[in-house]
Amino acid sequence: MIIDLPFVADLTDLPLTQALQHKLDNKTKPLGALGRLEQLALRLGQIQGTESPMLQAPQMLVCVGDHGLTAKGVSAYPSDVTWQMVENFLAGGAAVSVLARQHGLQLTVADCGVAREVPARDAVPGAPRLVHCRVAAGTQDASVGPAMTEAQCAQALRNGMDIVRAMPGNALLLGEMGIGNTSVASLLLARLAGVPLAECTGAGTGLDAAGIARKQAVLEQALAANAGATQPLEALAALGGFEVATLTGAALQAAAERRVIVVDGFITCAAVLVAVRLAPAVLQRCVFAHRSGERGHGHMLQALQAQPLLDLGLRLGEGSGAALAWPLLESACRVLREMASFQAAGVDGAMR
Amino acid sequence: MIIDLPFVADLTDLPLTQALQHKLDNKTKPLGALGRLEQLALRLGQIQGTESPMLQAPQMLVCVGDHGLTAKGVSAYPSDVTWQMVENFLAGGAAVSVLARQHGLQLTVADCGVAREVPARDAVPGAPRLVHCRVAAGTQDASVGPAMTEAQCAQALRNGMDIVRAMPGNALLLGEMGIGNTSVASLLLARLAGVPLAECTGAGTGLDAAGIARKQAVLEQALAANAGATQPLEALAALGGFEVATLTGAALQAAAERRVIVVDGFITCAAVLVAVRLAPAVLQRCVFAHRSGERGHGHMLQALQAQPLLDLGLRLGEGSGAALAWPLLESACRVLREMASFQAAGVDGAMR
Repeated sequence: MIIDLPFVADLTDLPLTQALQHKLDNKTKPLGALGRLEQLALRLGQIQGTESPMLQAPQMLVCVGDHGLTAKGVSAYPSDVTWQMVENFLAGGAAVSVLARQHGLQLTVADCGVAREVPARDAVPGAPRLVHCRVAAGTQDASVGPAMTEAQCAQALRNGMDIVRAMPGNALLLGEMGIGNTSVASLLLARLAGVPLAECTGAGTGLDAAGIARKQAVLEQALAANAGATQPLEALAALGGFEVATLTGAALQAAAERRVIVVDGFITCAAVLVAVRLAPAVLQRCVFAHRSGERGHGHMLQALQAQPLLDLGLRLGEGSGAALAWPLLESACRVLREMASFQAAGVDGAMR
Repeated sequence: MIIDLPFVADLTDLPLTQALQHKLDNKTKPLGALGRLEQLALRLGQIQGTESPMLQAPQMLVCVGDHGLTAKGVSAYPSDVTWQMVENFLAGGAAVSVLARQHGLQLTVADCGVAREVPARDAVPGAPRLVHCRVAAGTQDASVGPAMTEAQCAQALRNGMDIVRAMPGNALLLGEMGIGNTSVASLLLARLAGVPLAECTGAGTGLDAAGIARKQAVLEQALAANAGATQPLEALAALGGFEVATLTGAALQAAAERRVIVVDGFITCAAVLVAVRLAPAVLQRCVFAHRSGERGHGHMLQALQAQPLLDLGLRLGEGSGAALAWPLLESACRVLREMASFQAAGVDGAMR
């Protein structure tokens, strides 16, 4: 595949890490008493290269696409729900719309390849905006051959990079929608991390046990039909997802720009898994929002060495988990910037 | 003990519960896909008696007191840290100050019995405010006799009720500070829930293994010295904590007024445990913010049949965990109020 990927530098900076740890340890609290919030603060400081990180103009990017695989009955919902939900995102009625509004996250919905094109509309400042970056009207059926051509996959990656390049702010929250896309994530996890397909295949939007068995059989066909696609980009193209490839491009570009990347659930993790296999330092910019209820996400998090913030049994996608975790990132920054030190507050330290 | 406690009615309302569940199930998402956030929404609707709950003017109440037990070396920090931290709360530099500011929570710090009286100051609208409700300059040493007299305990309970009665809004977040108060919580857990003391006794602000062993020996003396205090109010008086008793009163009053009660960590849970033993329906109004890193909190949550929202290894107290969980309560309300239904959004439901 011919594509220029952005360079993602290693952020390891031992003096800064030590300075951040020292700053945290001198805040008016027992050592380590803010638990995982302190690790989060450390990470945000490292990403921004400062002892006083600050999040600005956070962007929620929800990438949307349709999947040829759905013709084989891998989802509990019809493909029409994909464009219907795009309308819902834009009208403000979806979970991610509500949560983005709550937290002041600018919501961008990208039509990366929805089967039925979503009509353009006038942009309203502050309201959800629609970006057209359609590669095609849905992917091909991956159970009989590649979901995308390599040229299509490269186009989707470039689209993701372009979208992020044009965005303000220093934090990107990743979300997605696309009936059938847990199948794509399961396939990428099985192929790139070598996890048995049975452990990658879950209920998605709500399949019963028989439905999951059918889905798994279709996914086995997809792996067999694309047996040669073992490298990250080739696997991404073959196993598909215009929205997944667009998210992979977005993650790479955001990482190159040292934006904080907030990863939602199973499907956005799959996009990030591809990005990390291409550029391991992407992982240094990632904050994993939650452990989802979808089977396979545990393996996915393990493959990414990720310890997520929330564990609320969410399995909606859209970026809803990323939005729910967002205030914790804000809190972590504020702890570093606003909490007093023992010295400044005149508080005695521990006796031993 | 002679005290009039407020009546806390049972909130069970099956038609409302069914209506709330129906409303959640018709939102544009797969059935149950918002996981624990949906259970939280259900609870908030039940507390407020409406299908469209809304949180207003949330109040963070941090109760502070000193403990005679500290003379026996149960804490890694000196008692002076208690008043020093009150100054830090009011100056805006403590974790709970920072987090309350982030989330628009009005912070009230109550001096329930700090050894060194905290000077009064002019109230500044929106800034943290100090309430004086000092019962005494710290409790007596519970390892040799009762920490409080019954009259003192009754006064602290009434103080908590009075504080809440005067507060605006419909949600109360509970926090605390007081060098030595994990000891009080351990004692109440052991006495009221029958958990072995060894499993109730943890590091608090940062004891090492030898320190924890010393602390446990002191706590065993306290249980023995107050062997007759087996009922909730008598145990509360004997085992102590002006701030804990004030929080118990606050929880009872908030429950009687159908406020949402957000419970922080180990010590606020102990106050709520006493309240629940006095009036079981208090539990219906409680949202448990997090599972803390303090040993004993797991047993405490079990005694309260509580499934907390966050699990971030926090062990700071102050109400910091309650503040961190707060945006999730807001989100849960917004899901009920603002998310579109399948019908309204024109989105197809599941095929099977």
